[in-house]
Amino acid sequence: YSDPYSSADDPMYAYFSAVAGQDGEVDAEELQRCLTQSGISGTYSPFSLETCRIMIAMLDRDYTGKMGFNEFKELWAALNAWKQNFMTVDQDRSGTIEHHELREAIALMGYRLSPQTLTTIVQRYSKNGRIFFDDYVACCVKLRALTDFFRKRDHLRQGFVNFVYDDFLQGTMAI
Amino acid sequence: YSDPYSSADDPMYAYFSAVAGQDGEVDAEELQRCLTQSGISGTYSPFSLETCRIMIAMLDRDYTGKMGFNEFKELWAALNAWKQNFMTVDQDRSGTIEHHELREAIALMGYRLSPQTLTTIVQRYSKNGRIFFDDYVACCVKLRALTDFFRKRDHLRQGFVNFVYDDFLQGTMAI
Ligand SMILES: [Ca+2]
Ligand SMILES: [Ca+2]
Ligand SMILES: [Ca+2]
Repeated sequence: YSDPYSSADDPMYAYFSAVAGQDGEVDAEELQRCLTQSGISGTYSPFSLETCRIMIAMLDRDYTGKMGFNEFKELWAALNAWKQNFMTVDQDRSGTIEHHELREAIALMGYRLSPQTLTTIVQRYSKNGRIFFDDYVACCVKLRALTDFFRKRDHLRQGFVNFVYDDFLQGTMAI
Repeated sequence: YSDPYSSADDPMYAYFSAVAGQDGEVDAEELQRCLTQSGISGTYSPFSLETCRIMIAMLDRDYTGKMGFNEFKELWAALNAWKQNFMTVDQDRSGTIEHHELREAIALMGYRLSPQTLTTIVQRYSKNGRIFFDDYVACCVKLRALTDFFRKRDHLRQGFVNFVYDDFLQGTMAI
């Protein structure tokens, strides 16, 4: 939960408050409305409710299904970075990301994936081989959240983690 | 890939062929149309494209994003079981599953989850505390696919698995 005294000075706080409504937190429906109105998708189609839900799940450390102010700001920054990234790697200006462009985008974000895993991801998030912005963001959200979850348990930074079944499910079912 | 000679005797094969179209495999859009027309959702709202995509991902062992005949039959059987299960545990006939009902549904399916993991799942798949059929199926699909993925690596059935980062992502990003 954010500190109302320090947050009040932040120019983004009034916007957040308007989006959040009475309960002071942003849920998936509120996020979808706000992202659609904000025009952050540009000429790309607006975000699906499903993508909004996983955006919230990524940042929702207390599992309430809602976002406070600091999480909202964090998401905003991540979205702008992903949009920038999307436009940079869409070199043929097709408005979508193709296999080789996704490989570049993922490398730009600092992830190291095997060709096989990259192919799996392209299959999952593309339609006829093309990845649209909404699905691209869903992919980025999951990649970040799953990597965060994995790293948090990889205390010795060895690149492998011993998961107990219940913990594995808790980290992966929400994303 | 299915054997066309044995499949041809199956009364479901003609239906599958009609759904699959020329390429002989069912993609997410075709699955969504077919499930909507089949009325399997009953009075519940039809499946979202996202849920159709994860249904395919669950069974898609060769990562093509499409389903052959055997996978189609397997999905059909799973869907009917989940629908039965949904109606059984919706004891107050609200048309939705609530927290305690999901606990029962998951126990009926034979999964053992901690209360904390159950709460995480309810948060993720519910809208105002209620889980609708479409989201319930998405939840069942993920639970099954993630459990299958985990078990396949838990060779000694110890309840824990040592994952390498890339393998962890390959199994979890697609679902
Ligand atoms: Ca709110
Ligand atoms: Ca492109
Ligand atoms: Ca109920």
